[in-house]
Amino acid sequence: MAGKKPKRVTARVPRGFIDRDASDLRAQDAMLAKIRRVYETYGFEPVETPVFEYTDALGKFLPDADRPNEGVFSIEDDDEQWMSLRYDLTAPLARYVAENYETLPKPYRSYRAGYVFRNEKPGPGRFRQFMQFDADIVGAPNVSADAEMAMMMADTMEALGIPRGQYVIRVNNRKVLDGVLEAIGLGGDENAGRRLTVLRAIDKLDKFGVEGVRLLLGEGRWDGGKEGEGDFTRGAGLDRRQRNWLIEMISNFQFDAKKFRVVEKDDIPVIGKGGIVYEYDTVVEDGFDDPNSVSRRIGDRLAFSSTGMDGVRELQSISEYVTLAGYGSDRIRIDPSVVRGLEYYTGPVFEAELLFDVTNEKGQKVQFGSVGGGGRYDGLVSRFMSQPVPATGFSIGVSRLMTALKNLGRLETSERTGPVVVTVMDRDRMADYQAMATTLRKALNTDENGNPVAVPVPVEVFQGNPKQFGKQLQYADRRNAPCVVIQGGDEKAAGKVQVKDLALGKELSAQITDNAEWREARAGQEMVDEADMVAAVRAILARQSGERG
Amino acid sequence: MAGKKPKRVTARVPRGFIDRDASDLRAQDAMLAKIRRVYETYGFEPVETPVFEYTDALGKFLPDADRPNEGVFSIEDDDEQWMSLRYDLTAPLARYVAENYETLPKPYRSYRAGYVFRNEKPGPGRFRQFMQFDADIVGAPNVSADAEMAMMMADTMEALGIPRGQYVIRVNNRKVLDGVLEAIGLGGDENAGRRLTVLRAIDKLDKFGVEGVRLLLGEGRWDGGKEGEGDFTRGAGLDRRQRNWLIEMISNFQFDAKKFRVVEKDDIPVIGKGGIVYEYDTVVEDGFDDPNSVSRRIGDRLAFSSTGMDGVRELQSISEYVTLAGYGSDRIRIDPSVVRGLEYYTGPVFEAELLFDVTNEKGQKVQFGSVGGGGRYDGLVSRFMSQPVPATGFSIGVSRLMTALKNLGRLETSERTGPVVVTVMDRDRMADYQAMATTLRKALNTDENGNPVAVPVPVEVFQGNPKQFGKQLQYADRRNAPCVVIQGGDEKAAGKVQVKDLALGKELSAQITDNAEWREARAGQEMVDEADMVAAVRAILARQSGERG
Repeated sequence: MAGKKPKRVTARVPRGFIDRDASDLRAQDAMLAKIRRVYETYGFEPVETPVFEYTDALGKFLPDADRPNEGVFSIEDDDEQWMSLRYDLTAPLARYVAENYETLPKPYRSYRAGYVFRNEKPGPGRFRQFMQFDADIVGAPNVSADAEMAMMMADTMEALGIPRGQYVIRVNNRKVLDGVLEAIGLGGDENAGRRLTVLRAIDKLDKFGVEGVRLLLGEGRWDGGKEGEGDFTRGAGLDRRQRNWLIEMISNFQFDAKKFRVVEKDDIPVIGKGGIVYEYDTVVEDGFDDPNSVSRRIGDRLAFSSTGMDGVRELQSISEYVTLAGYGSDRIRIDPSVVRGLEYYTGPVFEAELLFDVTNEKGQKVQFGSVGGGGRYDGLVSRFMSQPVPATGFSIGVSRLMTALKNLGRLETSERTGPVVVTVMDRDRMADYQAMATTLRKALNTDENGNPVAVPVPVEVFQGNPKQFGKQLQYADRRNAPCVVIQGGDEKAAGKVQVKDLALGKELSAQITDNAEWREARAGQEMVDEADMVAAVRAILARQSGERG
Repeated sequence: MAGKKPKRVTARVPRGFIDRDASDLRAQDAMLAKIRRVYETYGFEPVETPVFEYTDALGKFLPDADRPNEGVFSIEDDDEQWMSLRYDLTAPLARYVAENYETLPKPYRSYRAGYVFRNEKPGPGRFRQFMQFDADIVGAPNVSADAEMAMMMADTMEALGIPRGQYVIRVNNRKVLDGVLEAIGLGGDENAGRRLTVLRAIDKLDKFGVEGVRLLLGEGRWDGGKEGEGDFTRGAGLDRRQRNWLIEMISNFQFDAKKFRVVEKDDIPVIGKGGIVYEYDTVVEDGFDDPNSVSRRIGDRLAFSSTGMDGVRELQSISEYVTLAGYGSDRIRIDPSVVRGLEYYTGPVFEAELLFDVTNEKGQKVQFGSVGGGGRYDGLVSRFMSQPVPATGFSIGVSRLMTALKNLGRLETSERTGPVVVTVMDRDRMADYQAMATTLRKALNTDENGNPVAVPVPVEVFQGNPKQFGKQLQYADRRNAPCVVIQGGDEKAAGKVQVKDLALGKELSAQITDNAEWREARAGQEMVDEADMVAAVRAILARQSGERG
């Protein structure tokens, strides 16, 4: 490069990607540690897969897969195999388990936090790289495992400091949804694609509202809201009767969720054949025992779908498991409007929802909503295997959860004490200042037995241009330094060193611009023998930590 | 997907990528925490950039950039801008600092661990995704910052448990190398490309040996070692005299590094003009004061290159800084054979080298070698800016360092206690077992004040197929469970529960295959009242932890 005059390059982060600073990362670390702890108490172990997978191994389970590049970032390798950046952590886990099936303990409980990638149009709060934190049990055929996932998620919310009543884990079952679809004439292999379109339409309820979903269930919807505006999304092509039926179901449950209660243990009906399923839906308040109610009619219809019946039974088991383990309907709740967008779910699906209000970009008060979800994906591992491998899991959207905790004032964003800064009065004596920093660093970070202290104490020598002393103090202030160490020629000659407490001297330091002025302003400043430098700094740290405590 | 019969997909991790299991990840976490702690005691703060950068912002500083796709993974975005996966953490940091220049404190000290990507031919130990852990000071013009990086790296090696004498931080200066190249007629802009080729050839000394480097300095080298075998790498085209001169220099210093000593403070000569530089090299043993020695001749030549002189002066300053701060030549050592492959270095370069022997794939004893390196890159941030922004940094190769620590027996790979497993005797009572697990989990993970205990105690209910009880015990054993909890119909009727200590009962459990047989074999097994279940498990955990202690 030397000698060449390269063209100036513009420094910009790519569209849809972000940089993250120290306070953001530290808050995230603290949050992830709490989540990890919960997962570990449930016997889950970490595992990590690479960001690339072969495209065929990942499969195409993303919603909105009709976009260019199918919503993922893909690259053709030089042996002509296509690789893609993972779009979630579930598909790679399925590949991992299949590849290592013989050597893994089964059931295999694992967790992993990692970045996933979506090749989507970036927008506000819509990133192309974001972190998920997943936990999964592979090789667990029973819905007791799904119940456990729901309970673990409830525990996770509380471990993060979200008060009971401010969150709920909503549980539904794809089989119930399939049963409902069967009941309105969308059963059979020939309707598989249409069912998926219907599920994804329902999943858009939060985003587009009832009328938007009605359009997506029918002919389709223009992105701009009006004909000809924006892109057109083709709908499921349902007739009016089918649409009304689904809309009635989802809008009732969606907007009046409190009317729907988890059945208490004593109330669980014995499940038989036919109309008994109806009782599943009638354990609700406010006239839902009316035979013309939505619930009643759903129940009556489901009774004729064996898939739907299976789904209802599974939900009842989950309800029984969590209730007996002490998780009430204030924490885990059956809710027939939960769908989840990913194609690979085959049974119970969950959604962790935060119930407190936030103000959206239009100034409206809305519930915070989902911070994660998951479900059973019995087909995903067996894509690679000759045997069925049942599995269930849950994924937390890390940055969305961080936003939620920030809103609740539960994000650990404590400002850290900055470094002790050894200032540079005489640039020819840099080696001395560096040695002073080394002495301080060693002394302050080691206890009397030579072991590391609990919280590290940063110490640094000022490495910028030392010409203006005021800038060194401004730097120390900016870094939230507890104190600075100063040794000019006079001090050196006398075998002394100055230690300045910035908390005490803060109000003055802002006005100081040069050495001469600084010499006048010695608030919080103390002259000590070189041999007492460590003790003097220790005293300042102790006093400041006492004040904070 | 329902109903479709998808073609079986082969589960395989992409070429050059790897999966990482729990013990690997935990060992890495423990190692990263120790490194992070050192960086924090030096006042460095975390920062993170995304894996993608615009290709022009990353620049092309990789060695071997003549491979297809230039050694990086690149994708064209839908707005026709090219993005690449970062190949190191330095180029993205430079972009970040330039983009946020006004708001960052200067000097800006930051660290970051993250995956980087190289689109290279995978091979043994050669991965396409690997982790680096970097620390950098941006806005630090003086070589005191380079000295600080070298000292911090030495501290890091010791914090990881690498004994003094088993590692060394080798320091050189690109300016010295440039001075040498100038001295043999490769100065000036017109030779910039050739100089880079020469540096990269020298950097290959470890890999190809002296004769390989000689070929790369001359006409070129065949990968297979003989003409026509493998790919041909074009050489720098130096004449025989130039080649001999360089070979003499690097082979002497490379293979007889002990002859070269860091100068002690009292010995530092006053640097003047002309031949005085010679003294820099004569502070060595074994006849290097011979005026015909390599060092003498290098010194004499360098005396005529102002770049070379600057480099020597900087090395002497670094030597002075580290010596005064108490870092002897057993820890930080000036070594003229250090090059570093990346193009962007402009001044001091470092290499952290481990000195213990390992056996290579050919069965030969070799030094472990480099686990990281870095240097000054004053031009990298100013690619984006209208002002110079000096910077220096260091990068650790995380997996290589882990391998080294494993070799030294210094990697924390302590086997963890597995989960307390609540077994399933009666699948209809799954809800009860789940409730028992919840009770145990809560009790064992909370202290008397309701706070989380220091080390989490995993508790889980068996979620696999419960049919064969022996398999449940095998599972518990496999997971390194301290004990299992058992409650069959008889126990339930009597209000009792069995708690089985697996450490005591281990030798028997392997032979147990069914419930009947199990009932005979009760080694380490204890029947307690349901109300005493928690206390009984606690007692087993306490006893086992006492035995381990």
